[in-house]
Amino acid sequence: MARLGFVGIGNMGWPMAARLVGAGHAVAASDLSAERVARFAAEHGARAAADAADAARGAEALITVLPTSREVAAVADAVAQALPPGALFIDMSSGHPGRTREIAARLAARGIRMVDCPVSGGVARARSGDLAIMAGGAAADLDAAEPLLRAMGGSVHRCGGIGAGQAMKALNNLVSAAGLLIAVEALLIGRKSGLDPDVMVEVLNASTGMNNATQRKLRPFVLSRRFDSGFGLGLMAKDLTIALELGREAGVSAPFAALCREMWAAGAAWLGPDADHTAIAKLCEALAGEALTGGTG
Amino acid sequence: MARLGFVGIGNMGWPMAARLVGAGHAVAASDLSAERVARFAAEHGARAAADAADAARGAEALITVLPTSREVAAVADAVAQALPPGALFIDMSSGHPGRTREIAARLAARGIRMVDCPVSGGVARARSGDLAIMAGGAAADLDAAEPLLRAMGGSVHRCGGIGAGQAMKALNNLVSAAGLLIAVEALLIGRKSGLDPDVMVEVLNASTGMNNATQRKLRPFVLSRRFDSGFGLGLMAKDLTIALELGREAGVSAPFAALCREMWAAGAAWLGPDADHTAIAKLCEALAGEALTGGTG
Amino acid sequence: MARLGFVGIGNMGWPMAARLVGAGHAVAASDLSAERVARFAAEHGARAAADAADAARGAEALITVLPTSREVAAVADAVAQALPPGALFIDMSSGHPGRTREIAARLAARGIRMVDCPVSGGVARARSGDLAIMAGGAAADLDAAEPLLRAMGGSVHRCGGIGAGQAMKALNNLVSAAGLLIAVEALLIGRKSGLDPDVMVEVLNASTGMNNATQRKLRPFVLSRRFDSGFGLGLMAKDLTIALELGREAGVSAPFAALCREMWAAGAAWLGPDADHTAIAKLCEALAGEALTGGTG
Amino acid sequence: MARLGFVGIGNMGWPMAARLVGAGHAVAASDLSAERVARFAAEHGARAAADAADAARGAEALITVLPTSREVAAVADAVAQALPPGALFIDMSSGHPGRTREIAARLAARGIRMVDCPVSGGVARARSGDLAIMAGGAAADLDAAEPLLRAMGGSVHRCGGIGAGQAMKALNNLVSAAGLLIAVEALLIGRKSGLDPDVMVEVLNASTGMNNATQRKLRPFVLSRRFDSGFGLGLMAKDLTIALELGREAGVSAPFAALCREMWAAGAAWLGPDADHTAIAKLCEALAGEALTGGTG
Repeated sequence: MARLGFVGIGNMGWPMAARLVGAGHAVAASDLSAERVARFAAEHGARAAADAADAARGAEALITVLPTSREVAAVADAVAQALPPGALFIDMSSGHPGRTREIAARLAARGIRMVDCPVSGGVARARSGDLAIMAGGAAADLDAAEPLLRAMGGSVHRCGGIGAGQAMKALNNLVSAAGLLIAVEALLIGRKSGLDPDVMVEVLNASTGMNNATQRKLRPFVLSRRFDSGFGLGLMAKDLTIALELGREAGVSAPFAALCREMWAAGAAWLGPDADHTAIAKLCEALAGEALTGGTG
Repeated sequence: MARLGFVGIGNMGWPMAARLVGAGHAVAASDLSAERVARFAAEHGARAAADAADAARGAEALITVLPTSREVAAVADAVAQALPPGALFIDMSSGHPGRTREIAARLAARGIRMVDCPVSGGVARARSGDLAIMAGGAAADLDAAEPLLRAMGGSVHRCGGIGAGQAMKALNNLVSAAGLLIAVEALLIGRKSGLDPDVMVEVLNASTGMNNATQRKLRPFVLSRRFDSGFGLGLMAKDLTIALELGREAGVSAPFAALCREMWAAGAAWLGPDADHTAIAKLCEALAGEALTGGTG
Repeated sequence: MARLGFVGIGNMGWPMAARLVGAGHAVAASDLSAERVARFAAEHGARAAADAADAARGAEALITVLPTSREVAAVADAVAQALPPGALFIDMSSGHPGRTREIAARLAARGIRMVDCPVSGGVARARSGDLAIMAGGAAADLDAAEPLLRAMGGSVHRCGGIGAGQAMKALNNLVSAAGLLIAVEALLIGRKSGLDPDVMVEVLNASTGMNNATQRKLRPFVLSRRFDSGFGLGLMAKDLTIALELGREAGVSAPFAALCREMWAAGAAWLGPDADHTAIAKLCEALAGEALTGGTG
Repeated sequence: MARLGFVGIGNMGWPMAARLVGAGHAVAASDLSAERVARFAAEHGARAAADAADAARGAEALITVLPTSREVAAVADAVAQALPPGALFIDMSSGHPGRTREIAARLAARGIRMVDCPVSGGVARARSGDLAIMAGGAAADLDAAEPLLRAMGGSVHRCGGIGAGQAMKALNNLVSAAGLLIAVEALLIGRKSGLDPDVMVEVLNASTGMNNATQRKLRPFVLSRRFDSGFGLGLMAKDLTIALELGREAGVSAPFAALCREMWAAGAAWLGPDADHTAIAKLCEALAGEALTGGTG
């Protein structure tokens, strides 16, 4: 029964915070949208905090689920006084490992322990508490965070020291993004060659071409043209940029990954960062001069 | 209880032909290596044919499992006289759809019905009769072939007219090859950034980065450095070339797929076509200046 | 003073045929557009032929300047009876070396000698007779063609046997297309970083970044947004496809070239094949989310 | 007749410093290699400084020609006390614009004016004083630097505020590196298809495929297999990394540029950063499975 602050009640943060409430914790919620916080508090029985510092006041742990390391840094600065010494700062955003280490150093100077615990799995798995959590930080700090993480995720993977969770997350999303991109290109070549995209998805899933996108994204979000998976194109492009920056900082050349990032960045430029990440298929269609559904181009 | 010819007793052909014998069919086996044929006949109770024409003589169906469309065309010419009119020519190689349509037209002129039924799944699934089979051809011909296909595969996917199975196969392997390539690059960036490749594989498999390679190839063949999956680099590069030629013929631009093919073709040039396809990791390591295992580069 | 047929009075063919008339030859001109032929005949004092066969009748040499090998093959079939034995068939189109060798074999069976002599330099250099001509064919046939080629080109480069001129042309255009593409991407990165594209062009031309596009295309066709160089996007994409097919047939992996082709093919799909090839900059702008001129994106 | 310090007497720095001496300036030279400094001083009549601070003492201007922004930052810290207020700090290295702006801010705090003036042209043009100089900085500071720059370069291009010279340099080298890479790939495809690389270079130079590499690098450094242009592979890869980081920071997707960088980074990993940049051809040969010279692969 811990006293918690939770900052960022977005697509993912909402069901994650709800799971913590459901597990019996006392949650003070904060978000840029006061309306959203009020709605969350009413629906789930949480306290609506006035701001991040208010959510942090007296909390044993503060959880952040925010777009980028920039917002996390701002929250860290805002709550450093409010959090009691020894408190945990659990960042579950998909941030940049280097930025995260800087934030952790600043928090450590005030006696606050940071761990980075980004997640994978999407909104549906957030609701069912079945997220995959990638955790970075000191072992003792991760031990302390573990019960809270277990309330939100089906598996907690310890990846190394602070920043390691986010490095893992960025690289996971690189593999995920590439799997969607290549599957869409394959469907486009196939369709123009006379194959039925729906049959193709069935065969890919029964064969070595299977991946997370062929199983969970092509039919519900792409071929249906709903493009509403809940994970934005700009966020995916950001994660891939982090993955490639890791490569560059490490001096590792990765040509295939580099082209992957450029195509997602181009998608975010062309379709806007707020488009759903599955709408990358529209960029592929434009480049291919062919559509995945409807009359052939 | 059909009378069958089987041409190509290689890594894949051997267990596939063995499943047909096991299902009670009378199989006459042929291969470039007479020694291999003799060994197969002795082990499984098949007839050792002198050559492809001998295997075809009087057969209701001839099955081919060969490296490329070139060998299939040669066999088709060699057996056209020996096969009785109305016989089935079931090509289970990964060939080029266009070449296959030419072969089918030549066979049709002699009253022989061709279907193209390439497979996916590798040696282990060939042994257990659990291959995914992608079938192209006229519906009546596929109906006739179905019982034989069922003896070898766990699923038979009808993809369209003659050549459609091979188009599907090439595109499936494109998605498969891309999944391995990007996973290896991600492991390399991760390792140089301080992550443990073995932990990374575990996390990818629990997350959206999951694909066939993260599940079945990275640990047994790549991280183990055994590189002995049984599917060659040159064959994978050939399938990707077919996929890209389909795209080119269809006028579809697919930048990510194109780079994928080039990297596999480069792998085949650098490591030799007979290297295992999982050894593509060695090319990635050379380009990255970093190894996946052992001391860091 | 030769008697010549000339088929294809397009952007390039017109000034090339005009140079032959100007050099004193008797030219019978043919084109799909009878109106264009009539206009050319009136302006330059040539004979307006009814069709390709009429242009070929009794000619010592027939010159073709057509979009692809397909049209050249059709003309070759149409004129094979009309051309006297021993006549020269000088194809100056940008065709596929393999197709060209097939056409040459068919013509040789009727005693007609083929050489392939595609050109580089664009409309302005066609007018001034300063084209670079890449010639393939038997030495004696090229000797015979040389005086005619000299009337159209500033330099004649013998590249090898039949088809070698077109292989060279496709590879030249690959290098040319890549030079334009990378320069546009550099200008886009620079502009968004605060540099002035016009200054950038000046510096590139004074430095190691200089290429044919920085010198002759960026300012007059791209930064001016006139996009009217006279050479189409679809034709450039076709040449790059030929270059990459050469690589594939030769078993040569060329990742950078492959991506280059895909981007031009995507440009042709997105902007239409009839757009000017310099309009590839619009595709780069769309992918970059930034424009080269006007307000910043 | 200015009193100057010069730090970095390497491949490029040596002839540049020599030109300043030749123009009548009093130069105090410094380098990590005292032996090299002694030799330079003896040959050209300069003063051999004990270290960078000694070279800077009392100088009106200090010129740096160093590998990366890291070394420039170290020198800036070392000389900030020794340089008189109002002195010019002229950095002619190929650095990172962002790092350069940070250095400039630190120097400004001590009253020292920084300009960034990287060069293009290579060792030969450094000797003849014909370098292209890309200059960034305040107009008054560039006015003050101009006479010194004129002693080393044939042209001085003002690109904008501090850092703009280096942004321009990185982007120039991106275009330059791409021009060499695509030309080598074209030669490899051509050679395997039967063309003579030497003839190909001649034709490219007469055609639209012309660029700085086809004119100045392919024959003397690549086809000769001398690989001794004097500009290292690691330095080129670094410049391309800067160019791509500019793109990333500006939010510009540039797929072709991104692949270019990866290939150069891979070259530096595979051949070592000290290999000559023209040796990138060896990487292309390895990927292509074909050599540019000697027996065919």
